This record gives sequence, C-alpha cells and structure tokens, in this order.
Amino acid sequence: MLTIKRLDLAEARILIEGAAEKAREIGVPMCIAVVDESGNLVAFERMDGGKITSVTIAQDKAFTAAAAKKATHDYNKVNVPGSLAFGIHTEVGGRISSVGGGLPVIVDGEVVGGIGISSGTPQQDMDCAQAGLDHFETKRG
Amino acid sequence: MLTIKRLDLAEARILIEGAAEKAREIGVPMCIAVVDESGNLVAFERMDGGKITSVTIAQDKAFTAAAAKKATHDYNKVNVPGSLAFGIHTEVGGRISSVGGGLPVIVDGEVVGGIGISSGTPQQDMDCAQAGLDHFETKRG
Amino acid sequence: MLTIKRLDLAEARILIEGAAEKAREIGVPMCIAVVDESGNLVAFERMDGGKITSVTIAQDKAFTAAAAKKATHDYNKVNVPGSLAFGIHTEVGGRISSVGGGLPVIVDGEVVGGIGISSGTPQQDMDCAQAGLDHFETKRG
Amino acid sequence: MLTIKRLDLAEARILIEGAAEKAREIGVPMCIAVVDESGNLVAFERMDGGKITSVTIAQDKAFTAAAAKKATHDYNKVNVPGSLAFGIHTEVGGRISSVGGGLPVIVDGEVVGGIGISSGTPQQDMDCAQAGLDHFETKRG
Repeated sequence: MLTIKRLDLAEARILIEGAAEKAREIGVPMCIAVVDESGNLVAFERMDGGKITSVTIAQDKAFTAAAAKKATHDYNKVNVPGSLAFGIHTEVGGRISSVGGGLPVIVDGEVVGGIGISSGTPQQDMDCAQAGLDHFETKRG
Repeated sequence: MLTIKRLDLAEARILIEGAAEKAREIGVPMCIAVVDESGNLVAFERMDGGKITSVTIAQDKAFTAAAAKKATHDYNKVNVPGSLAFGIHTEVGGRISSVGGGLPVIVDGEVVGGIGISSGTPQQDMDCAQAGLDHFETKRG
Repeated sequence: MLTIKRLDLAEARILIEGAAEKAREIGVPMCIAVVDESGNLVAFERMDGGKITSVTIAQDKAFTAAAAKKATHDYNKVNVPGSLAFGIHTEVGGRISSVGGGLPVIVDGEVVGGIGISSGTPQQDMDCAQAGLDHFETKRG
Repeated sequence: MLTIKRLDLAEARILIEGAAEKAREIGVPMCIAVVDESGNLVAFERMDGGKITSVTIAQDKAFTAAAAKKATHDYNKVNVPGSLAFGIHTEVGGRISSVGGGLPVIVDGEVVGGIGISSGTPQQDMDCAQAGLDHFETKRG
C-alpha cells in the first residue's frame, strides 16, 4: 500500500490567495486553478475579468504540473521541433500544457498538487503561480 | 447591444459557502461549482473527501442549470423514454445533466449564474444547491 | 453583480453583412461566425461555396477572439517554438485558434463579441473580419 | 495536508490474478483493469481473446468504482428513467459506467482503488471482479 500526501482544500485556498494577491498587484485578473497530486481539481477561482478561455487553460496547466511533476515552462523548453519531446502538448486529449504558468506544489520533496494560472502573458502567469507557492511556503512557516 | 447581469466572484463564494455549510450539516463532503450566466466556471471547491467523478459532474450540473436556465431535476422529469425530450442528457458533448443537483441562480427574474453540487445522492445534492441559493438570498438581504 | 455588454443579433447581422460584402468583392465565399463576449455563437452564415471545414474553423476563430480577448493573428505571432505561449492552439479541446481571421469586437473599450472568418487564405480571412468590424463601426455612427 | 492510501502495483497484480483465475474457471477471457483511488490506471491485462471494446470498458468500470466510490452495478440500479440519477452514465465524457463489473477496493473503510472487468455478461464480469477482491483479501491475510 502506498501512502500519498495530498493538498487539502484549506491549502488550495492559500495558494489561490497568494496568486490572486500578485494578480491584483500587476493589474491582471486571472483564472487560478489548484489540483491535487493526481491532477484532479481541488479549487478554482476566476477573478472578475479573467478570460473565458483561461478557465480551461488554467486547469490544464495545473493538471500538467501536478500529474507530470513538471513546470509547464519546462515542457515549453523541450517542445520545439527536433526535440524528442516535440508535440507533447497534444497528448492526453490536449490537456498537457507547454505554456508557462503551471507549477507543481512540492512539500518535503513530494509533489502534493499543482497550481495553474491563465489570463496574462505566460510570464505574468508564471509570476502569479510562483507567488501562490511563495505565499503557501510562508503560511506553512 | 444587450446588457447582461452576471454573478461576480464574491457572490460565487457566498453560494459555495451556503452549500458547504449544508454539506457539513448532513456529513457529506461535496464538490461545488458555480458558473456565470453563460455557463463558464467562476468558482469551484472540492471539500476534503468529495468524489473525483463529481469534479466534472458538479460543473456540468451548474453549466446545465445556467446555460439552459433550468434545474437539472426538471430535465430529469422529462428525460424518460417516450418524452420528446428523452436523451437530452447526451447533448452538448454530454455536458447536459439530467441528474438532480443543478440550480439556476436567478436575480430579479434573470438567470445570472448556476450552482451544481455532486458527491451525495441526487436529493442531497439538490438540498445543498438550494442551501447555497438560500444563503445567497439572505446575504443579499 | 457584474454588468456585461453583449452583441445582439441585429449587430451580429451587421458584422456578417460587412464581412460578406468584402468576401464577394474578392470573390471568395466565406464561412462567417459571430459570437458573444463569452464565445457563444450568435449568428453564422456559410456563403454558397464556403468550405465545410470552415464551418468549425470560423466558429473557433470567433470563440478565441472573444473569449481570449485577442486577435487570432496575435496568437499566431507568439505561437512559435521557443515562445512561452507555444502550443496554445491545442488548448480548450483545440478550440483556441492561432490562424489569422478572428477578431474581437470592441465597444467603448470592452470586448462585446468576436467575429471569425474562414475559407480563404488567412490574410483574406483577416481582411473580411476587419471589413465586418469597419461596417459595424460605420453603422453605429 | 491529507494522507491518502493507494494501491501499489504488487497489490494490483494480486487483484488481476484473482479475477483472471475466475475468468479461466468460467472460460471467458477478460479485460481486467485496476486503478488507484483517484481513478488512474495502475495495471491492465487483456487475456488472450478478450474483447477490444472491453479495453476501454474495463478501465471505465474501474475508474467509476474508485473515483465515485461505488460499484457500477449500484449505479445501474438508480440509472432508470424517473430516478433522479438517470443519465449518470453519460457524465464525465461518458466514462461513468453503470454496467455491472466495477468494484471499489476498500481497505480499513477507505477506497484505495478500483477493479473493472469486461468481456463477459455483466454478471460474469461482476463475479470476476468479486473474485479479484476475494483473492486480494486472502493474500492480505
């Protein structure tokens, strides 16, 4: 039997809180998704003004980060023609995202969930995802 | 030009809060989804212990209730062999739900969103969806 | 509660009228789709001779332009290997289009809908979409 | 943080072994799927002669049993016209199965995975799924 650590809802809210704070700071309303270690949604918020397309994209970024245990911007680096990983983004029914903005949530070396942000530029999305992780670390103390 | 009223995120949180309170009362951890008047997700929470299948089902119930302006249990009544509406649940890529637990959110006679609940029996899901609406009404005063 | 501006059907027809006029001028029968600000279809016309594949493509272009608040040719620019947005076109079940021919419809700084054109070259599609917007502006006066 | 129990691969093999033994006994080559508590595949075997359609059906039964924490034949009972749960089988992209043959794997009161069987009659599939669970219980001692 395996024993798995998984984000709970209270922790998912902290991740969202940290990301949303950064989104307000940079003035870009975001879609923010948090999934568990298996890639299943725990919590989601679309800030007022967040993009409709980003409802799905944020979830897919979070799914990819948690379920593949990899930042989506790391998939981006290898998703170039000639790379053996090229085309990875169309796998799993297109749910694998190679667009920046998805980060795994890691606790004591284990992936316990993922956060995915969408509505800004990929760099803005990445910054807000990182802010979610930073806030989570601070709160865990 | 049309002018549309749409739930904002703060209101979506109130709906979730009311539904979650009822879920705790009956001891069934739920997946709770709130969508806007066009059926797009605004907020979602999976209470600790909510079912994985319900992540999607809750969203589909909310989508159906808002986008079709109809409670999912009303679709249930007409989704019987011999009824001219039979089979409606497989439409829109299967996103139309005829399982009880999705309710439109109506303000001043207009549908402004939808709430969808899943993880309990359909009746439990319906009770929690209604509790969300009741809490929303109380808070609006 | 949010208040949203949304294209009405009469306005959607004006957009189509302008695009179709341009299509006749260049001699390319087009598929023309107009969606609301949430990306849902308001009106569609396939001019006699328009391509079957374009029935879907025009809708996806209009969806992308409205729901992501961005011209599809702007996604095209960043959808290149090495860009952090590469692969965006396979998101949302492949409905995100990075092919030229989708434009948001903007009124008083707000996206109120989108127009998507398909059947010609991307540049022809873009020209017809723009002609739709120009005709809409003229009629609004 | 939640702590989750999850079937490991060695345990999945034991479940398959028990189901396959029963399948050989009744002379029906089966597709046998074992998923973890989140519904993701851990192990799968198609016995020589197992049906091609059953490759997917067995997985969907196992997914349903684990992710909805419910035997697929229990969904079958409520998936009748007039029941508030009618139509549940088309949810989650049609992955919810209400055909007999999927059982949750429960250890110390917690769902740790699911087993799904397909290629025989529903009753045969159910018997083999149960045989998998029985063998698992025996081996755990």
